[in-house]
Amino acid sequence: MLRMLGLALVLTAATAAADTPTRIPERAIPIAEALRDRALAGTPAFDIVEDLTTTVGPRLPGSQADARAVAWAVAKFKALGFDRVWTEPVTIPVWRRGHARAEVVGAFAQPLVITALGGSVGTDGALEAEIAEFPTLQALREAPEGSLAGKIAFISNRMERFIDGSGYGPAVVARSNGAVEAARLGAKAIVIRSIGTNSARFPHTGNMRYVDDVPKIPAAALSNPDADQLLRLLARGQPVRLRLDFEAGTIGEHTTHNVIGEITGRERPDEVVVIGAHLDSWDLGTGALDDGAGIAITMAAGALIGQLDKTQRPRRSVRVIAWGAEEIGLLGAYAYAARHADAITRHLIGAESDFGAGRIYALRAGVKDSAWDAIERIGQVLAPLGIVTERGVGGPGPDIIPLAQRGMAWAQLAQDGSDYFDYHHTPDDTLDKIDPEALDQQVAAYAAFAYLAAEAEGDFGSAPREAVQNR
Amino acid sequence: MLRMLGLALVLTAATAAADTPTRIPERAIPIAEALRDRALAGTPAFDIVEDLTTTVGPRLPGSQADARAVAWAVAKFKALGFDRVWTEPVTIPVWRRGHARAEVVGAFAQPLVITALGGSVGTDGALEAEIAEFPTLQALREAPEGSLAGKIAFISNRMERFIDGSGYGPAVVARSNGAVEAARLGAKAIVIRSIGTNSARFPHTGNMRYVDDVPKIPAAALSNPDADQLLRLLARGQPVRLRLDFEAGTIGEHTTHNVIGEITGRERPDEVVVIGAHLDSWDLGTGALDDGAGIAITMAAGALIGQLDKTQRPRRSVRVIAWGAEEIGLLGAYAYAARHADAITRHLIGAESDFGAGRIYALRAGVKDSAWDAIERIGQVLAPLGIVTERGVGGPGPDIIPLAQRGMAWAQLAQDGSDYFDYHHTPDDTLDKIDPEALDQQVAAYAAFAYLAAEAEGDFGSAPREAVQNR
Repeated sequence: MLRMLGLALVLTAATAAADTPTRIPERAIPIAEALRDRALAGTPAFDIVEDLTTTVGPRLPGSQADARAVAWAVAKFKALGFDRVWTEPVTIPVWRRGHARAEVVGAFAQPLVITALGGSVGTDGALEAEIAEFPTLQALREAPEGSLAGKIAFISNRMERFIDGSGYGPAVVARSNGAVEAARLGAKAIVIRSIGTNSARFPHTGNMRYVDDVPKIPAAALSNPDADQLLRLLARGQPVRLRLDFEAGTIGEHTTHNVIGEITGRERPDEVVVIGAHLDSWDLGTGALDDGAGIAITMAAGALIGQLDKTQRPRRSVRVIAWGAEEIGLLGAYAYAARHADAITRHLIGAESDFGAGRIYALRAGVKDSAWDAIERIGQVLAPLGIVTERGVGGPGPDIIPLAQRGMAWAQLAQDGSDYFDYHHTPDDTLDKIDPEALDQQVAAYAAFAYLAAEAEGDFGSAPREAVQNR
Repeated sequence: MLRMLGLALVLTAATAAADTPTRIPERAIPIAEALRDRALAGTPAFDIVEDLTTTVGPRLPGSQADARAVAWAVAKFKALGFDRVWTEPVTIPVWRRGHARAEVVGAFAQPLVITALGGSVGTDGALEAEIAEFPTLQALREAPEGSLAGKIAFISNRMERFIDGSGYGPAVVARSNGAVEAARLGAKAIVIRSIGTNSARFPHTGNMRYVDDVPKIPAAALSNPDADQLLRLLARGQPVRLRLDFEAGTIGEHTTHNVIGEITGRERPDEVVVIGAHLDSWDLGTGALDDGAGIAITMAAGALIGQLDKTQRPRRSVRVIAWGAEEIGLLGAYAYAARHADAITRHLIGAESDFGAGRIYALRAGVKDSAWDAIERIGQVLAPLGIVTERGVGGPGPDIIPLAQRGMAWAQLAQDGSDYFDYHHTPDDTLDKIDPEALDQQVAAYAAFAYLAAEAEGDFGSAPREAVQNR
């Protein structure tokens, strides 16, 4: 989600109309507190993510497993008692990876651990060349024209660890844009240090981009220990040659789906509070932290609200969206935002859980000024969960961005992501990395937040407007 | 090394002749203390393991990299100033692995992470069958005759974590003997839960055995998260089918080498104290913890002793042995023991560093009773390193076993192996897992131990005798 943070901050103020302050009715508070405390006593969240990651496993957009995940989500929403369950189609390109081999050749011959970046072409057989190392993408950009001719570029920048994942943005540009920049200078291929904070020998995949007028060269990530190994070999002062051999490529178009489950509001059922997470995952792990945890948290939170007595149902509907095709460019989110463009004002506020399974430590929001007191009041209900309310910082989860660009207010239930990028996009993103108790804390927060937001008297500033920037 | 522990305890008493107590001369103490403190101030150990793991990388016995490792060790011993450096040939079978793919097929289709066990045959194309799970090797043994016909056996036992690695022995029998036992019951293949304590998605390789009269079936290890995944799938109550496709096999014989560096003793140069570690490694990681660290520690300890003024040299020689082909059955160690069978009494005592890079916390020994006071005196010099002296427990490092079987006394400088089996035999056994300061503590201990043992007045009980048991 952090790739979007810069943009998101622009939206923080939302529409700042000088109107009647939005407030949370006091009679809603004990109901929200009861939801919160019921969640802390135990929720089905862990069982939900256990089931998704076990029976479906990895679910790359457009794969057979992705279709199984869509069917799974429909069935799970129904089993959890959601009032309405439906899917909305999303057309996507389908990308696949095959085998991946890399080795140093010559005097220091040895195998390396790599994986193709999402969207990359393959090497079309083995490709061998000397590597040219750059500490950052910027340093590569500054290399003389043609200086990479016939070489494999290697960007060695290392992501730094922060609780909010803010080391991701500065590092991930090497992944997103490295291939284009290296190809402009004549490179035959590019390898990057994985965008991740761990020192385990897993490569981190993730999306990359080509542009039309630049040759599409193969792009892969080395694990952190392998990137260190290359640096040590280069430090010996002799040329280092790599042989790369990996299969990858885009193989056509496919239709996947957003899956939506809704708890119908008692007074204004066509107005919705959006929570959710993305259903797809990369293919290497089982997508437990990214983003099975978010699916489980927000499904369980919605289900908890759905179990309220009819008289206690929130005024507005709570819509849980299991977004499709997030990993390959928020494609489900863009499709949803386009399809519902005329209904932005009926989307009261939205939040996505897409940052692993660590506890929530902060509530942040992008709402109109006159709605801030309502956010603060929600924050008071979340405070016993160890959650502080922070104004003027943060941004929405990735799949909320397209709606926020069109004017929807957003909230962020910020998770402790200190170790998120140890596992993110690796084969090691598996169920055992999830603490069930931490999941329940998050269900508690999402349930109380969604309930109170749906109960609000007044709105949070959602307003139809042009997309700020289509990313 | 722990596979040998049961045997080793048998040898603890060694020969208990009632003779003059062995003692460490007091004039040797300040020299040993100076060696110890010099090591703590910094040694080349980390640079040694950095160089081995970087320039050679993985060094599977009989591979080109193994030959490069032998040349590396000869050059390194010379560069470190050892007085004599030589190699001794070891004839070994050569085993190789190729690709490894595994997947669940059917309703829960998904890929799994596996690796072939060392010594296994391959699947000869894809092999598909239902799995039959057993919690232990013993449970498999008790299955009815023919009950595994056409199936893939799966042993799910989990290794437990202890500082001394004592969870290894009870678990590793599944790896060593699982294929034979499963084949006896008709299985087509076997997969085991990795023998390791981590929950990272790395499979742990390691040696396995066939016997002549039982079909040789392919054997592979699943990572711990993948073994958990299979158990969860089986818990759904439906048959689970796997497709296995991996290449592996023994491809002939080869000659590798033990590499030996010696610091010549000042009075009895033909009597030796043996320290060392094994030079070979599995092919998945770079053999940093297993056993590049041990190579570095013992080479640096020997070199430190070699730097003493000639008048301060120990009475006997210190022989550092970089053992070959340990991983495939202590083949270098057996070759050495056979070659030097007539010289057992000139091998005063031996110790191997083969348990990762964790600090040493205990000195243990298998010596004659009348030499125990000398061990205690050595222990007093090691005590400031946080090392206690323990009697009646422990056993020698693996490559010491064949010599101990023939009557050589042994010492164990026991390392903290709490996390050793998180990395052992995985792709993640890389340099970044080593703490340079912990290496220096171990160099200090080995240097002081070897020096003082080589200075002893009297011996530790080495005596020629029949091998207790040839394993």
